[in-house]
Amino acid sequence: MVLPRQSDGCRRRIPGSEGYALRRCNRVFSPLEREVLSVQQLHERSKRETMDTSKLAERLNESGQSHVLQFWDQLSPEEQAEMIVDLESLNFMEINNFFKTAMKTSGQNSQEKVDTRMEPVPREVLGSVTRDRECLKEWEEEGLRCISENKVAVLLLAGGQGTRLGVSYPKGMYDVGLPSRKTLFQIQAERIRKLEQLAEKQHTRKCCIPWYIMTSGRTMDMTKEFFIRHKYFGLKEENVFFFQQGMLPAVDFNGKIILEGKGKLAMAPDGNGGLYRALGTQNIMKDMETRGISCIHVYCVDNILVKVADPAFIGFCTLKGADCGAKVVEKTNPTEAVGVVCKVDGRYQVVEYSEITLETAEKRTADGRLLFNAGNIANHFFTLTFLKEIVRIHEPQLQHHVAQKKIPYVNTKGQLIKPDKPNGIKMEKFVFDIFQFAKTFVVYEVLREDEFSPLKNADSQDGKDNPTTARQALMSLHHRWILNAGGHFVDENGTRIPAIPRHGPAGTVTPEVSQNLKDGTDLPIKCEISPLVSYGGEGLEHLVNGQAFQPTLVIDENGVHELVKNGL
Amino acid sequence: MVLPRQSDGCRRRIPGSEGYALRRCNRVFSPLEREVLSVQQLHERSKRETMDTSKLAERLNESGQSHVLQFWDQLSPEEQAEMIVDLESLNFMEINNFFKTAMKTSGQNSQEKVDTRMEPVPREVLGSVTRDRECLKEWEEEGLRCISENKVAVLLLAGGQGTRLGVSYPKGMYDVGLPSRKTLFQIQAERIRKLEQLAEKQHTRKCCIPWYIMTSGRTMDMTKEFFIRHKYFGLKEENVFFFQQGMLPAVDFNGKIILEGKGKLAMAPDGNGGLYRALGTQNIMKDMETRGISCIHVYCVDNILVKVADPAFIGFCTLKGADCGAKVVEKTNPTEAVGVVCKVDGRYQVVEYSEITLETAEKRTADGRLLFNAGNIANHFFTLTFLKEIVRIHEPQLQHHVAQKKIPYVNTKGQLIKPDKPNGIKMEKFVFDIFQFAKTFVVYEVLREDEFSPLKNADSQDGKDNPTTARQALMSLHHRWILNAGGHFVDENGTRIPAIPRHGPAGTVTPEVSQNLKDGTDLPIKCEISPLVSYGGEGLEHLVNGQAFQPTLVIDENGVHELVKNGL
Repeated sequence: MVLPRQSDGCRRRIPGSEGYALRRCNRVFSPLEREVLSVQQLHERSKRETMDTSKLAERLNESGQSHVLQFWDQLSPEEQAEMIVDLESLNFMEINNFFKTAMKTSGQNSQEKVDTRMEPVPREVLGSVTRDRECLKEWEEEGLRCISENKVAVLLLAGGQGTRLGVSYPKGMYDVGLPSRKTLFQIQAERIRKLEQLAEKQHTRKCCIPWYIMTSGRTMDMTKEFFIRHKYFGLKEENVFFFQQGMLPAVDFNGKIILEGKGKLAMAPDGNGGLYRALGTQNIMKDMETRGISCIHVYCVDNILVKVADPAFIGFCTLKGADCGAKVVEKTNPTEAVGVVCKVDGRYQVVEYSEITLETAEKRTADGRLLFNAGNIANHFFTLTFLKEIVRIHEPQLQHHVAQKKIPYVNTKGQLIKPDKPNGIKMEKFVFDIFQFAKTFVVYEVLREDEFSPLKNADSQDGKDNPTTARQALMSLHHRWILNAGGHFVDENGTRIPAIPRHGPAGTVTPEVSQNLKDGTDLPIKCEISPLVSYGGEGLEHLVNGQAFQPTLVIDENGVHELVKNGL
Repeated sequence: MVLPRQSDGCRRRIPGSEGYALRRCNRVFSPLEREVLSVQQLHERSKRETMDTSKLAERLNESGQSHVLQFWDQLSPEEQAEMIVDLESLNFMEINNFFKTAMKTSGQNSQEKVDTRMEPVPREVLGSVTRDRECLKEWEEEGLRCISENKVAVLLLAGGQGTRLGVSYPKGMYDVGLPSRKTLFQIQAERIRKLEQLAEKQHTRKCCIPWYIMTSGRTMDMTKEFFIRHKYFGLKEENVFFFQQGMLPAVDFNGKIILEGKGKLAMAPDGNGGLYRALGTQNIMKDMETRGISCIHVYCVDNILVKVADPAFIGFCTLKGADCGAKVVEKTNPTEAVGVVCKVDGRYQVVEYSEITLETAEKRTADGRLLFNAGNIANHFFTLTFLKEIVRIHEPQLQHHVAQKKIPYVNTKGQLIKPDKPNGIKMEKFVFDIFQFAKTFVVYEVLREDEFSPLKNADSQDGKDNPTTARQALMSLHHRWILNAGGHFVDENGTRIPAIPRHGPAGTVTPEVSQNLKDGTDLPIKCEISPLVSYGGEGLEHLVNGQAFQPTLVIDENGVHELVKNGL
């Protein structure tokens, strides 16, 4: 291993580089540094950093990770500088410990063991929009009351990159092709605004739902810029907070950090459970405390139907005295790739679909439902008290999950290799890892078609969880809102379009019967209602009752618009 | 209108034609006719037919359909001859009556009326594979007993063309891309063979399940040839019967027959309910009677998972003393485009998804299920007695359903026009139209993932009900059979693949969590079990228990094979 070379420290121009380098440590100074610092100061800074670099090399050596510097001599000064920044941010001993613990845990959690220890969610901790309809109004009112008292915050998990979606920017910036061209961020921001208005109206006092947005090293800048460019979508800047989850390097099966370039570690966000560490390191809960927040709705950016700060969910959890709650959808197919909320050894957790045997997945109750049917959708309720305890006490004990991956790497000759079988692991924590610490845990079951349609894949893929399914899910929901508010749709000939169009949302079944009324209509009905007009279907009667609309229909704060065909 | 020209009757060669024509009626004689008939005989035949043609013109005139001959003079002799064949087969007065009645009925069946009259299927007529598991064995044994006594026939609805699928041959000939490249016809034939063997083994007597295959004018020849070419897939030729459903012309909104070419009527099969008329005209029930058949399983060709002559279904219906039964899957999403079995005015029927209001579709029982959840999958049980009564008494009273369609037509200038809005109707009967006449009607609920995956669309479409979903549904089912028989799968590195792979069948949901074990494995597991080895998952233990397999796994009558990767 060759460490940064000792040299005379004189400044000289590197051809093709925009900066100057001190050969001693190959340190690149920024234009600003060069402007404000004298040569003497630059020299001193360089010397100090050389010591830091030596210390870094020592740390790598001690932790058995010094192989990451094997191509050091071949790096340009800029690459060296960048690599140092990456390395400086890492605690190698800690990473080694994460690896050891994660591998041990991953070995223990064998299928056989979890299966025999699993119990379903008992009915008494379950609230259901289909089975407890008589309570919905009460729950919603309680939630709105909490919101009106400024007690509710929302926390968005947006650290992931749109890799599977095939984009290089954060998923929240994605436009799924709605008539309004709104992005996921905008839809969510407007739901927050509308909910504030609803709470204010009901309780005649001003209120605010602060929005905490967890990004990662790779999405922070773009996310922030996007919000600034769009003036926070009408929210007050002081009520939107960005913070950053940690990153961890991928390691091989021996725990050695993987290089994805000669000077570049294979880094990835530390899982959505990185939330709890980030909350601690970035003092988020202090801000919540100052504002008097008592409960937090945590959700994932990719669900286009997400009811941000859903008052019914918050009200249900609050009235049950829960410190932790999970919103779920019913799992109806045993082999559906969804984790299930259940009890293991008397403690709540999410058992991943890959951990369960088919026999367990297929178990049913007497009424024919799957025994383990509480499908996790990354949509949670926490009290601030609970979160504080997690950060203070439990977070350090949370172990990483191991995901075997095919990770592109450079071999000892410096060639980039794309492996065709898993060659390493990513270590991640999951947001639901803290369920086990809840004192009062509750589960809230909602309808998939109303509340869950995640955006994961590009449209070219196998037709699920992609921009088309997301767009259709939202438009189908809004179509139902129109119908339930007394409106209906007609085609270009004025013929009434049935409530259930021929092509329902993806995943539905068309039987071997001819369609009775329509042929070739472009379905689902193109119809979009701005969250600023309706949060959950309310308040539409005076706009649509008794009226016939021709798609595309857009209802926004400026009124009701029928767009010309193909005007999308 | 100009009728076939009178001429000298002399035979002369038409350039570019393979036959001779008699100008008097432009009659084209077949090579066989020319071989066996003298010139005098040909002349006489031609004369006789000219008279028939005059009668035909008269019939058209009387029924107000003579516009179909408007381009007669412009037709080649062959076209004229073909058109006469088409026209001769039609009863125009009857078609006019069908049109009048269908339009009247279609007007009456307005949404409002059906909604208020609908009642769900009562629990006491329902058998469910999930809710009555303790009865399944008994039902299955009863069904196998019936089969062993040669009392069970299967009847396949295969008159449709693969238009939406984008092929020019019958759907049953489609190869969805299984490792074995088996077609739908072959899969179904082999299921029949296996079931015969199971019944024979259980009751130690030879038995046979005759297979009645309803084709249409457009699929008959190809279907028959396909079966002959494949030696009836191992079935005895004398136990496979082909018969043909009727065809009807499409008509415009005034009941006028639509021309899709100058000499070509827009003809289509008369719906899968054309079955009952075809049964009568082609004396099918006579054959059933002779064989001592007492019950018939009727199903649609496009369902790759269909349990042909499902003994549990037959046993359930028989033990309940039913004359008519419908197999259903649970409808779980209110806007799913599936018809539901229910009672209307105290009689069972299928209410189509396009006939129902959203309010009714969204109704739920106290346990959270949809009130109208018996999703029709065109899979029925009838006793022969019931069918005979239908054909004898009720068939003529069945009214056609009206499907508005965009039907390409030639305008008065003879130009082909592709309309962009519906310009006419197709008249169809549905196989379930006879439920209303049942004395004892039952419903049998099965699991969609086990029994229903129809092939409707080409792969390029929106990812549902296409060759990929059909193939995946079958392989996913067979994967589960392997697991339940004690086998499991490993990847190319020997790592055990979880029971629930990352990419489940289309329509399943992947939550925002990382996959724990695998990355990028091509899923679902490629795995196919020949129906000749297992009809419904039985009899696999001795082949797979305790064993690990690497996909692609094929189990057929020659043994267990692991195919090399990409060997598909």
